[in-house]
Amino acid sequence: MEQKAIAVIGSAEARAEVCDLAYAVGREIARQGATLVCGGRGGVMEAAARGARAGSGHTLGILPGYNPEDANPYIEFVVATGMGQARNVIVVASAGAVIAFEGEGGTLSEIGLAIKLGRPVVALRAWHEISRIDHTDDPETAVRLAVERAAQSPPSG
Amino acid sequence: MEQKAIAVIGSAEARAEVCDLAYAVGREIARQGATLVCGGRGGVMEAAARGARAGSGHTLGILPGYNPEDANPYIEFVVATGMGQARNVIVVASAGAVIAFEGEGGTLSEIGLAIKLGRPVVALRAWHEISRIDHTDDPETAVRLAVERAAQSPPSG
Amino acid sequence: MEQKAIAVIGSAEARAEVCDLAYAVGREIARQGATLVCGGRGGVMEAAARGARAGSGHTLGILPGYNPEDANPYIEFVVATGMGQARNVIVVASAGAVIAFEGEGGTLSEIGLAIKLGRPVVALRAWHEISRIDHTDDPETAVRLAVERAAQSPPSG
Amino acid sequence: MEQKAIAVIGSAEARAEVCDLAYAVGREIARQGATLVCGGRGGVMEAAARGARAGSGHTLGILPGYNPEDANPYIEFVVATGMGQARNVIVVASAGAVIAFEGEGGTLSEIGLAIKLGRPVVALRAWHEISRIDHTDDPETAVRLAVERAAQSPPSG
Repeated sequence: MEQKAIAVIGSAEARAEVCDLAYAVGREIARQGATLVCGGRGGVMEAAARGARAGSGHTLGILPGYNPEDANPYIEFVVATGMGQARNVIVVASAGAVIAFEGEGGTLSEIGLAIKLGRPVVALRAWHEISRIDHTDDPETAVRLAVERAAQSPPSG
Repeated sequence: MEQKAIAVIGSAEARAEVCDLAYAVGREIARQGATLVCGGRGGVMEAAARGARAGSGHTLGILPGYNPEDANPYIEFVVATGMGQARNVIVVASAGAVIAFEGEGGTLSEIGLAIKLGRPVVALRAWHEISRIDHTDDPETAVRLAVERAAQSPPSG
Repeated sequence: MEQKAIAVIGSAEARAEVCDLAYAVGREIARQGATLVCGGRGGVMEAAARGARAGSGHTLGILPGYNPEDANPYIEFVVATGMGQARNVIVVASAGAVIAFEGEGGTLSEIGLAIKLGRPVVALRAWHEISRIDHTDDPETAVRLAVERAAQSPPSG
Repeated sequence: MEQKAIAVIGSAEARAEVCDLAYAVGREIARQGATLVCGGRGGVMEAAARGARAGSGHTLGILPGYNPEDANPYIEFVVATGMGQARNVIVVASAGAVIAFEGEGGTLSEIGLAIKLGRPVVALRAWHEISRIDHTDDPETAVRLAVERAAQSPPSG
């Protein structure tokens, strides 16, 4: 009964063209029947959630604070952790695979945690310096790869 | 767009009659249009989630481990924290109010955290020694009180 | 080589007479050669840390925030978690036993977590409604009991 | 009264030559009068702690589990988190600066978190692909840089 989930990670202050890509990815995640998991805030997270909702998919936002009202308006199910950056662990652990957009230290930490926890990572036009993950330039390919990788390596603990 | 959420807490090894109550509470939570949040494991958590799904409600399970497969079969959205007992904070913080069944130290910690974070608690046939929370013997009253209390004191942080 | 550790928990806004008791407990913990672990803030935590330092003992403060400067001036080793109330888990898990002063929801959550994790709890002039823990009115007895209980039930996980 | 702290991060299964470097770094941290913070386990963490203790410095180990006995024998103060990889946040947040050895996803996550939280990072013969941090080949230089950077950018939150 559990839904399959794909995490989207990236900057809370992303450039417009990155947000457009994130929207396309969110929409494709919904089209593939998967739930979108993200950090619940703005930028890449909001654009991807907006795309997923536009595609009638479910969205989960894992917030750093305690206040559910801090979630962006496209988050359907709000998880309020109050754990600051430790919530990054939960974002990647709760997904079968992770799609990474450009970002800063927070996004880099999520890539590291995904590698550690065995969640496959697909980077979209970003993170070329990290060699242990997949890379692509196309949003649909990113989602297809993520869904395939998730099916190949079921999340464990 | 965010769903209102009610947390159900209690023993993972509850007696049959307590599980029957938890099922009734889960079903009533769904009937009231709220999402059930719980710790994702057995006993009270599983019975409440089963009730919520029987009532066509949504269910979120906040697991102590990293493996989504550890969730009970009635959890629709699995949040894998890998944070052990620290996940108790997230269960109560993610809800507008908390319904507490009998339990041990873990449940007691969740009651304390709910008091700390300003999430109203309604205890159902349990925790009479804790005076700072509401008490009732009736499952429907518990849900009605929880939904009312949540509306009166919107979660903050 | 690891130091034995005793946690002290209680209100950050304790009454003067409770702080006097906490100071005595901190001093006695040092005299017994144990390290004081606490939440690193004011009230009971600060008074106990002041007592421990007066007795030439070591003190650890597990802070809810990221800024080490938030620790009270008697904390020798600051652990900055940024995890809010989830740091309560770490306070009790890092100790062989716990001494509980009067407090609110936060302290109650720590008592529940200690019960869950098998860390013995001794309540000092407080928490008479909680039956699964030891109670005493005397600070020296509290420390003696805590040290004995810690030796009897070595922390596990 | 608070001690200044330097974190050392790196693989729990490091090669012998990396452990020799970590030992030298730990010893130099002690010589500079700083406390060593690490993840409390084997490999780089154990070698650095052994070096710090050989130099009569203090050592803090932030464990992923609940059992203090899991710490390596050179950890003086054990912090048992039970939070798995979320403890990585605490390792870097509790230090004024971070020295990074070669490692895998866990170490990468700590570098990302340090960047996010404004803790300066000095990489020692590793992580050349990460451009937003300092790099050096010499253990003494690494410690000197870390202590200087920590003094320049006091930890905040």
